[in-house]
Amino acid sequence: MPAHLPDSEHPRIVIIGAGFGGLKLARSLARKPYQVVLLDKNNFHQFQPLFYQVATSGIAPSAIAFPVRKIFHRIPNVHFRMAEVKEVKTDEKQIVTDVGSIEYDFLVIATGADTNYFGNAQIEQNALPMKSVQESLALRNKVIEQIENALISNSAEERKERMTLVVVGGGPTGVEVSGALAEMKRFVLPKDYPELDFEEMDIHLLEASPQLLNGMSEQSSTAARKFLEGMSVKVETGAMVESYDGHTVKVKGGKEISSSTLIWAAGIRGNRLNGIPSDLYKGNGRLEVDDQLKVKGLKDVFAIGDISYMPDEAFPKGHPQVAQVAIQQGVWLAQALTSKGKPMKGFRYKDLGSMATIGRSRAVVDLPIFHFRGFFAWLFWLFVHLMNILGVKNRFFIFVDWMWYYIKFDQNLRLVIRTKDKSE
Amino acid sequence: MPAHLPDSEHPRIVIIGAGFGGLKLARSLARKPYQVVLLDKNNFHQFQPLFYQVATSGIAPSAIAFPVRKIFHRIPNVHFRMAEVKEVKTDEKQIVTDVGSIEYDFLVIATGADTNYFGNAQIEQNALPMKSVQESLALRNKVIEQIENALISNSAEERKERMTLVVVGGGPTGVEVSGALAEMKRFVLPKDYPELDFEEMDIHLLEASPQLLNGMSEQSSTAARKFLEGMSVKVETGAMVESYDGHTVKVKGGKEISSSTLIWAAGIRGNRLNGIPSDLYKGNGRLEVDDQLKVKGLKDVFAIGDISYMPDEAFPKGHPQVAQVAIQQGVWLAQALTSKGKPMKGFRYKDLGSMATIGRSRAVVDLPIFHFRGFFAWLFWLFVHLMNILGVKNRFFIFVDWMWYYIKFDQNLRLVIRTKDKSE
Repeated sequence: MPAHLPDSEHPRIVIIGAGFGGLKLARSLARKPYQVVLLDKNNFHQFQPLFYQVATSGIAPSAIAFPVRKIFHRIPNVHFRMAEVKEVKTDEKQIVTDVGSIEYDFLVIATGADTNYFGNAQIEQNALPMKSVQESLALRNKVIEQIENALISNSAEERKERMTLVVVGGGPTGVEVSGALAEMKRFVLPKDYPELDFEEMDIHLLEASPQLLNGMSEQSSTAARKFLEGMSVKVETGAMVESYDGHTVKVKGGKEISSSTLIWAAGIRGNRLNGIPSDLYKGNGRLEVDDQLKVKGLKDVFAIGDISYMPDEAFPKGHPQVAQVAIQQGVWLAQALTSKGKPMKGFRYKDLGSMATIGRSRAVVDLPIFHFRGFFAWLFWLFVHLMNILGVKNRFFIFVDWMWYYIKFDQNLRLVIRTKDKSE
Repeated sequence: MPAHLPDSEHPRIVIIGAGFGGLKLARSLARKPYQVVLLDKNNFHQFQPLFYQVATSGIAPSAIAFPVRKIFHRIPNVHFRMAEVKEVKTDEKQIVTDVGSIEYDFLVIATGADTNYFGNAQIEQNALPMKSVQESLALRNKVIEQIENALISNSAEERKERMTLVVVGGGPTGVEVSGALAEMKRFVLPKDYPELDFEEMDIHLLEASPQLLNGMSEQSSTAARKFLEGMSVKVETGAMVESYDGHTVKVKGGKEISSSTLIWAAGIRGNRLNGIPSDLYKGNGRLEVDDQLKVKGLKDVFAIGDISYMPDEAFPKGHPQVAQVAIQQGVWLAQALTSKGKPMKGFRYKDLGSMATIGRSRAVVDLPIFHFRGFFAWLFWLFVHLMNILGVKNRFFIFVDWMWYYIKFDQNLRLVIRTKDKSE
């Protein structure tokens, strides 16, 4: 079954994934002499940095999900297909999707990364990930339901288990979600549940390595821990989670925590594609690319963003898996593809800095030149994120949501909503 | 298993359902000498009149779903439980729910109504209802997916089937959703799908009776039809749908329409409860009540809103099943319950009028004194609906969504989002 794409005199570039990298590349190829086919299993681009706010009832999912088609209005050479890729046949330069097969002249793999449970099937089954809008919504539902259930517990132990939240992973996601949960506990939930005593509620943040926010500066790491502990998050570093059966978190060394909700933000791994030889996946499940972003061992196939692995002197373990790398690679690859044979200097990542927010009015920011933290860091965080959200209305709605919360200490999104589909 | 409710010296009123009626009653009983227990299977109140806008990507689901607990902050005598009622034991004055059993002194049934397929199991399986936020979201997903699928059709027939939408039921819901779909067809979809020819897209509105908007004035009915036909909706009255297998709609008399999407807004029936003798359900599956809103044949049990049936001289077939009746009954019942034995004049419904909107800038409004239609009717419709939405922020967001759409002919909500729950 063919995918019914229009004919074109230009070579066809197929991009798999409309995340930061794939989307940037497609936009940069607008009106260039290529037929661009952009594929994603969702019909929207997701703004990953704010998943944690969807999960903690801070903003609506639609505010951080932007319809891909809207981005390409009036761009005739970019064609979007909502499709799941079943297989890549690199010999035939063809990919097979659930909406038909597509031939390519150049293929760009921008499939990103998903949650890594490091092979622990029990944790995978019982823990909650947060790597998509859908998973973030499921987490929102779960947290609210556990508090509802706490009300009808038959014992103090049961209630305590339901009111205890454990976050695993002390990277930006784990730090930000712990901070947001601590604020819900302090400002929002006591008003909703006057029958419960929120002193009983514990929020644990467990990180296996010796410090939070690895990859950021020492000062930021220390400040983040201090901010979180000031909000009574129980931070433990050097704490490696060994098992979780849905009720008890077992930490290496013997410690156990009773909790019915475990949020897993402890690692990611590349989203693999059928048909790509598995020995091409290197460091942490990523595809090794040369400095032209070409996948080593394949012809006319590129990889950008979280799925690409390009160790060099500055980054011997490959680039950090963050939006900035993906965006810069998308821009670079568009230039390379349109350079008309002029040789390009290899891709170099320019680190613009990193940051994390910890609840209301606090953040840590590492810029290349200097580091800062506190209220101004938080304002800077707000500004950078707002400016990077797609869509004027989304930006405006998120701004109002944030200001509303800032002033009123409240949101209206504590809703347990599941879509009710009919089987087709 | 008990439901762990706090002790109280006051009699306990259990209200099943946080729709317009149940919510109004509970709010009106705030700080009165009763312990009020409000139950709903959702933790939010739904603003039903705008379901069609969620279904047509006009507003976000969270804008019309308001957390019940937030409404009862600082109201100590009202207790909410997110619970599904399994059985009512009227002899023991007890109800059994999935969160435990609850004794009552007075029971108020405010369960509302759900879609009525009139016993046609095939239609029930294949048609899409629109009686909850969840169902409206599922409809939004379905409509978008069908247009995506149209792109990859293997024949003109297949494409036509996927681009054809059939709405069954010419009441306010059917009229409003048809109008909104016609606008999507005209203003929004052609920009998203330049590869498709929207001349091929047909929107049918089928009504079994001889006219649209039964219950409204002749002028309004005629105007609504004219407005819809002006937007090229194919309106057919006297068209009774007999079957739908997911592909072909068969209408009585032999006509057939190929369509992969059938929206069923043709009727409702009361949401029944286990344990209530089935012979108490009268006109259209409703519980017959006396003019004190007491369910005939039961002791200390009341029914309000869409589930109650109170035929009188003015309404020999019972009241219309609309929000206004439920709200007035909630207010009346709160007064009756707090009248301290003073005899109350029976409930009388005061008809404040009815209205329906048909796309951008057009509506029909029937007030008791006069009827009007067109642009001012539309402004009036906007105003009345905005004022009745719960929550200042929701009101503001909906207002911005509407104005944005009015000015830009566009929304950002064409998202296919499904929650991704893990089985527990």
